[in-house]
Amino acid sequence: MTKKENKNNLMWGGRFSEDQNEILSTINPSIDFDKRLYEQDIKVSIAHCKMLVKQKIISSEDGEKILNGLNKIHLELKNGSFSFSYELEDIHTHIESRLKELIGPPAGRLHTARSRNDQIATDLRLWVKESIEEIIEIIQLLLKSLIELAEKNVDTIMPGFTHLQTAQPITFAHHLMAYFEMFYRDLSRFEDCKERLDENPLGSGAIAGTAFNINRSLTTEALGFKKPMLNSIDAVSSRDFAVEFISCCSINAIHLSRLSEEIIIWMSEPFSFIKLSDSFSTGSSMLPQKRNPDAAELVRAKSGRIIGDLNTLLIVLKGLPLAYSKDLQEDKEAVFDAYDTINICILAMKGMLENLEPNKKRMLEFAEKGFSTATDLADWLVINLNIPFRKAHEITGQIVKLAEESQRSLMEITIDEMKKINPDINEKVKTVLSVQDSVKSKNSLGGTSPKEINEAIKIAKERLI
Amino acid sequence: MTKKENKNNLMWGGRFSEDQNEILSTINPSIDFDKRLYEQDIKVSIAHCKMLVKQKIISSEDGEKILNGLNKIHLELKNGSFSFSYELEDIHTHIESRLKELIGPPAGRLHTARSRNDQIATDLRLWVKESIEEIIEIIQLLLKSLIELAEKNVDTIMPGFTHLQTAQPITFAHHLMAYFEMFYRDLSRFEDCKERLDENPLGSGAIAGTAFNINRSLTTEALGFKKPMLNSIDAVSSRDFAVEFISCCSINAIHLSRLSEEIIIWMSEPFSFIKLSDSFSTGSSMLPQKRNPDAAELVRAKSGRIIGDLNTLLIVLKGLPLAYSKDLQEDKEAVFDAYDTINICILAMKGMLENLEPNKKRMLEFAEKGFSTATDLADWLVINLNIPFRKAHEITGQIVKLAEESQRSLMEITIDEMKKINPDINEKVKTVLSVQDSVKSKNSLGGTSPKEINEAIKIAKERLI
Amino acid sequence: MTKKENKNNLMWGGRFSEDQNEILSTINPSIDFDKRLYEQDIKVSIAHCKMLVKQKIISSEDGEKILNGLNKIHLELKNGSFSFSYELEDIHTHIESRLKELIGPPAGRLHTARSRNDQIATDLRLWVKESIEEIIEIIQLLLKSLIELAEKNVDTIMPGFTHLQTAQPITFAHHLMAYFEMFYRDLSRFEDCKERLDENPLGSGAIAGTAFNINRSLTTEALGFKKPMLNSIDAVSSRDFAVEFISCCSINAIHLSRLSEEIIIWMSEPFSFIKLSDSFSTGSSMLPQKRNPDAAELVRAKSGRIIGDLNTLLIVLKGLPLAYSKDLQEDKEAVFDAYDTINICILAMKGMLENLEPNKKRMLEFAEKGFSTATDLADWLVINLNIPFRKAHEITGQIVKLAEESQRSLMEITIDEMKKINPDINEKVKTVLSVQDSVKSKNSLGGTSPKEINEAIKIAKERLI
Amino acid sequence: MTKKENKNNLMWGGRFSEDQNEILSTINPSIDFDKRLYEQDIKVSIAHCKMLVKQKIISSEDGEKILNGLNKIHLELKNGSFSFSYELEDIHTHIESRLKELIGPPAGRLHTARSRNDQIATDLRLWVKESIEEIIEIIQLLLKSLIELAEKNVDTIMPGFTHLQTAQPITFAHHLMAYFEMFYRDLSRFEDCKERLDENPLGSGAIAGTAFNINRSLTTEALGFKKPMLNSIDAVSSRDFAVEFISCCSINAIHLSRLSEEIIIWMSEPFSFIKLSDSFSTGSSMLPQKRNPDAAELVRAKSGRIIGDLNTLLIVLKGLPLAYSKDLQEDKEAVFDAYDTINICILAMKGMLENLEPNKKRMLEFAEKGFSTATDLADWLVINLNIPFRKAHEITGQIVKLAEESQRSLMEITIDEMKKINPDINEKVKTVLSVQDSVKSKNSLGGTSPKEINEAIKIAKERLI
Repeated sequence: MTKKENKNNLMWGGRFSEDQNEILSTINPSIDFDKRLYEQDIKVSIAHCKMLVKQKIISSEDGEKILNGLNKIHLELKNGSFSFSYELEDIHTHIESRLKELIGPPAGRLHTARSRNDQIATDLRLWVKESIEEIIEIIQLLLKSLIELAEKNVDTIMPGFTHLQTAQPITFAHHLMAYFEMFYRDLSRFEDCKERLDENPLGSGAIAGTAFNINRSLTTEALGFKKPMLNSIDAVSSRDFAVEFISCCSINAIHLSRLSEEIIIWMSEPFSFIKLSDSFSTGSSMLPQKRNPDAAELVRAKSGRIIGDLNTLLIVLKGLPLAYSKDLQEDKEAVFDAYDTINICILAMKGMLENLEPNKKRMLEFAEKGFSTATDLADWLVINLNIPFRKAHEITGQIVKLAEESQRSLMEITIDEMKKINPDINEKVKTVLSVQDSVKSKNSLGGTSPKEINEAIKIAKERLI
Repeated sequence: MTKKENKNNLMWGGRFSEDQNEILSTINPSIDFDKRLYEQDIKVSIAHCKMLVKQKIISSEDGEKILNGLNKIHLELKNGSFSFSYELEDIHTHIESRLKELIGPPAGRLHTARSRNDQIATDLRLWVKESIEEIIEIIQLLLKSLIELAEKNVDTIMPGFTHLQTAQPITFAHHLMAYFEMFYRDLSRFEDCKERLDENPLGSGAIAGTAFNINRSLTTEALGFKKPMLNSIDAVSSRDFAVEFISCCSINAIHLSRLSEEIIIWMSEPFSFIKLSDSFSTGSSMLPQKRNPDAAELVRAKSGRIIGDLNTLLIVLKGLPLAYSKDLQEDKEAVFDAYDTINICILAMKGMLENLEPNKKRMLEFAEKGFSTATDLADWLVINLNIPFRKAHEITGQIVKLAEESQRSLMEITIDEMKKINPDINEKVKTVLSVQDSVKSKNSLGGTSPKEINEAIKIAKERLI
Repeated sequence: MTKKENKNNLMWGGRFSEDQNEILSTINPSIDFDKRLYEQDIKVSIAHCKMLVKQKIISSEDGEKILNGLNKIHLELKNGSFSFSYELEDIHTHIESRLKELIGPPAGRLHTARSRNDQIATDLRLWVKESIEEIIEIIQLLLKSLIELAEKNVDTIMPGFTHLQTAQPITFAHHLMAYFEMFYRDLSRFEDCKERLDENPLGSGAIAGTAFNINRSLTTEALGFKKPMLNSIDAVSSRDFAVEFISCCSINAIHLSRLSEEIIIWMSEPFSFIKLSDSFSTGSSMLPQKRNPDAAELVRAKSGRIIGDLNTLLIVLKGLPLAYSKDLQEDKEAVFDAYDTINICILAMKGMLENLEPNKKRMLEFAEKGFSTATDLADWLVINLNIPFRKAHEITGQIVKLAEESQRSLMEITIDEMKKINPDINEKVKTVLSVQDSVKSKNSLGGTSPKEINEAIKIAKERLI
Repeated sequence: MTKKENKNNLMWGGRFSEDQNEILSTINPSIDFDKRLYEQDIKVSIAHCKMLVKQKIISSEDGEKILNGLNKIHLELKNGSFSFSYELEDIHTHIESRLKELIGPPAGRLHTARSRNDQIATDLRLWVKESIEEIIEIIQLLLKSLIELAEKNVDTIMPGFTHLQTAQPITFAHHLMAYFEMFYRDLSRFEDCKERLDENPLGSGAIAGTAFNINRSLTTEALGFKKPMLNSIDAVSSRDFAVEFISCCSINAIHLSRLSEEIIIWMSEPFSFIKLSDSFSTGSSMLPQKRNPDAAELVRAKSGRIIGDLNTLLIVLKGLPLAYSKDLQEDKEAVFDAYDTINICILAMKGMLENLEPNKKRMLEFAEKGFSTATDLADWLVINLNIPFRKAHEITGQIVKLAEESQRSLMEITIDEMKKINPDINEKVKTVLSVQDSVKSKNSLGGTSPKEINEAIKIAKERLI
């Protein structure tokens, strides 16, 4: 009963019908997806009802009946006994109609001083706000998994790539903590989004506000919003909060796609940098040793889906005149899908990190290839022989060439050979040519040395508290 | 049980779970959406089985058992008695597993000389091919509705807008037939897409082909494909046919969004160019006269959704190494959603056209405003007085200015007044200043004159046969 | 010399060449666009050089020569005397190479303890940061224009639309202030983005950090960043700051597109709600009275361009392994284009608002159509006769129907006629049926009454200080 | 002077100006980019002029003067002596204005019976048509390069991957020919697009057609179009041809991004499957052995740019009412940029293929890992021992497990060991366990065997003639 399925043919997706009623009952109703807002809708109605009573706009007797009715409906929805019908197109009408069945005429007073427009806007804001809170929670779990894996790999040396070519030796922990930074910014982006949307549209009416003596502070407080929205037309017409939410999801998804790509490459036979436990990879009955990184592939792919959702909503809003238009009904599915997708992607990534084991021997082996400490050699020339940086590069180039031609590592070039290229080079140069020494030397703030990484992990933990 | 819904919590969309098994059983299975391929999957298995028998790769006894089993499963799926389980992750495994239950060991021979990879690719191609055939059918219905409405409005004069400003009088039929051309090209785009994808992947195996003595011509013919795909790696890795399909849907959706926008504007109070019958507009209990163009708004908005799907698939494929990767599992929902959405949008537009009534008086009134025949005046000067085009424009500008300042129409300017601006102007000029004359004069091929439009409608009908 | 032009054929865009060198010299160099970073690049080099001297990594003599050289190059670039060449592929190499020409060997020391990777990342962050500061400035100008126009139209009544159908009377000021809220949130989004990216990548080296005894606090302070980035791999690999920037531009562009759409519709002949002065609309020599809203159309369209840029960057980053890859070179043009486009769009909108004159008579006329005060009537029934809201709706519906059938306004229905529908209705109802009374009555917080709007304007002004 | 650069400040991109004239002269003119249409614009004017003469709408004397003037302008534009000005906003006005300078009053007759709207539409269609012809040409060159490389590698064995995990041995030629199929379909997509857009808008006037006695067949033939467009409103309002063009570019770019990704991975140290010659990879002075696949990375990234262009145009068109709106001015840059980008990407890929050398030893080594012939073993069991497929899989799984646990290849498992798992297995099984035998056995149509590949190459060559 959703985006993917024609409701009149629930299971298989219906092929086309020319029946006019069927066309309309397919394109118009939103109950298939907006029923996800039921918790919010009831919460909003309760807050509104209590305010109406307090402001003496409805009597406390009617108010009590309404509240009882809403609580009963909440229960029915929660335990699955509530029954749906396409004729009552959306969740709001469903609840209102059920309320009337349950309590009769007083139900007709609940909608006093509000309209569908401010009600929907409030429901969705609440939903997004709560969803962000949950996403923040699971990003924190992901960050903890990253820290845990990093802590175990402060001394694990791997090749640092640029252009997927070996550039410099780094530590695996350092690499992982780069993602910590990205995900941490993602988290702060969600926080900003939540902060900005934390305003109450309720009380805006259809567009113009209302002549009833309502008190928007009361509903604002009851619903836990920071403040009421200041312009009733804006309140019912704007969906930038939803776009911003999906934009935050998109950036987060991009970061997840980058780590997924690395996991997939690292798991390839030629790399063999890591193993994923059975729980997060799939084999086959025939090839029991095989480990397909399915979860990583899906997380990588699903970035496309979330960006698709982002485009959907941006395009829906493009050129849309104020105030409410039915176009806005298309906001919900994009938001729900982005939420569902980012949620499962974050959790899958967290699961992979917890089930990932580096092949340290293999990582080290490749860290030592490609003359990865050539920069260290050049830097040594600058620091110790006071050779200008660009000149030092040239000398290093000559030594690397010699090594390459004779199929040796930099460590295997003798001092005498080096002296032929630059006579000032001395034995001490050997202290920077091993990947271990290289890594240890990178003590600049944010650098790859175990000392710096331990510091970074310490700070990261504090940031998570 | 789809994109929008967490399967373990079918109705309300589940908030997050950290349970590892649940994460995997949420992200991995595709049964929620790929069950839509069941018809195709069984068709493919039947064709494959018959070929295996014919090629003596399996015995005819086993073949018969398999076919009987498949037919039974088909029935179960069709009548809804088939039972699903998330453990059997996809529709293919469901059917295979049920086959084993039904016929025992011979079921194990069906998968001989094929793999999941070529099977899935074949299923989806078949599905898209059939979907295109249906879309072509309903676009034809839409085109017929356009023609019918145009036929009734060959003489209905309306303002032709540029920049939403009155430019020249045109006929409503002419305006409608512009959309005929667009939708007709959309149709031809779908046809090209179908033509190009009409190739059979079956027999490609996992990636390399197979050592069995299969006959791909047999399955190609049985499945109604034009020819077998020529490279087995391409056959299992490529999804350009799906991208092209959604691209065709996107362009079609854009055209629908343009017509929807016009319907919405035409229905606004200040325009009041058209009415939509109750079936395709919604009112309210309180405002019985109100006609909200909900269907048009939804069609306009849903263009965003389809373009979102297009982006999803393009991004999924970006940078994806050959051959099969799990990322490709994300192709289906985008394809299904684009199909469902374009399907309902075309039908809704068709319905609107059939329920749309122009307000001819109102259209005419506005066609006469804005000095809409000024171009006709300028052209008259060129044709009859042999004044260069640019000069004729200037003279016309002066006459228009005079009319505007005195708040009169061009028709109301006297010949004497015109003569003061250009002495060669004579009485005959009046024959081009009415909107009726203007429209009639546009007899160039493709022009707005009733004569040309009648011709265009005639040709259009022939193109539809 | 940009995105649009093939550099070897500057003016007309070159058609294809198979020459290998030409292919590479077309695809590789970035100088055509990254020269826009020259200010930032020199600023970064100056800060880096001073730090190197302070940390005694290079001598103060060399440092002075470098600084002199950089200042000279800055001047050359500013006054246009600097010469470019495709062989020196990017702006960084251009400056470095020119420095060597100017000061000889000491130039070779500038690149000590930094790499192209952290240099580029720092340049771009600085550029985006400064660009955001400018955008914030011009959004403030736009907000001021909105306030000014609103102040003049606190009492200007217009129809408030839903579904582009008349819903309720509102004030023009109220409508304008809805956009104030949207643009104000856009502004805060840019501020958050700036805050988040305000970190210094310099000192991160190629990926691993550096063994030189650098001091990142010094460059951080000199460049005006809030703090150094904490992970060197993240510093050179991440571009989420750029995506977030374009995302902020996109949302802002969407809001601008909505207002543009309204301006275009309002300027149409049937609406005629506003006029734009000649400066912001175009006519023709032939139709001097014509006012095409070209600027509004371009602003509306350019939202597509910015969203295109957003997609570009998201897709570039999708699945990109760490750390630096040449793919990242594609970040700059998207960022520059989004900046240029949003900049001109905001300014064009500001210009339109300053040149826009409402046609108050026309607005009022349409505010009175469509029984726009029906809600007021219903609310009056609820408030004064204590009729439940839903019942009040029904009664109102009957009265509206009566008015419609007799082609009268609600004001024109007599009390006696109303009494036939509900006997309790009395004379006082007339006090809510005029659009003026309706508007005045909407005194809820954020409502459309002049009293509330004046308050909203007052608050808005305070927010801008 | 383009998308990236503020024209009043050509070089550095201007920061904001509040000057109203400057705002308009920045947002309005299109001369910066539409000058690329000059060839087409002159061609269109020449065809139009000749038709006007033939139809006696203008005199042959005037016609001759106009043609002479146009030819002169063509020359000036070609040799760069033509001078531009922002006041003459677009290329059409530039040419018209220059014509007036050159030939005086007769210039004013050229615009008879046409309008800017049909002129622009015709120019752009011509431009896209010619661009497609060029793209088709260079795709053919790319296909030839693929064939050449494939021909040299019919016997080069490499691992075929699924999930980037070794699945089955394939030949490198087979892998390359998969891309042949993709690019060949891309080519056919461009052909369909060209075929569909090959219609002449000229003669449609502003929107309504014209009252002049024009002959559209004459211009259609002169411009080389297949036929005239049949509806004048459609002719000036539609841009689906441009969207379809960018959509074709996008799909092509996606295929190029996939091959680029593979090149990048193959060039990584752990894979080392290929080498790119110096011309198509970059090293550094310090690391002379280094080969960064810059071109491949740029091609991969630029897919994002083209998809960005696609979105731009789709969004520009979304909800745009007919007929011409200034929004349509935003079509050109997206089209030009997509063309330029796909052009250079195809050529860069062609260059890479011509400079790519496989490391056959390395490829073979990895083809033999991962028990890549396990499927062959299973198939052998089915074919020779008549074991059902699924059962054969299980047996194979047991043998693989044995091999893995004892760290041997399948070839190294003795027949006796195999017999313990299934007693019917005999010596002959050895004939399918080598990767060479596996590859040779895949003789199904489209399979990986050298025999099949040679056939595929033969067919491919025929398709290119």
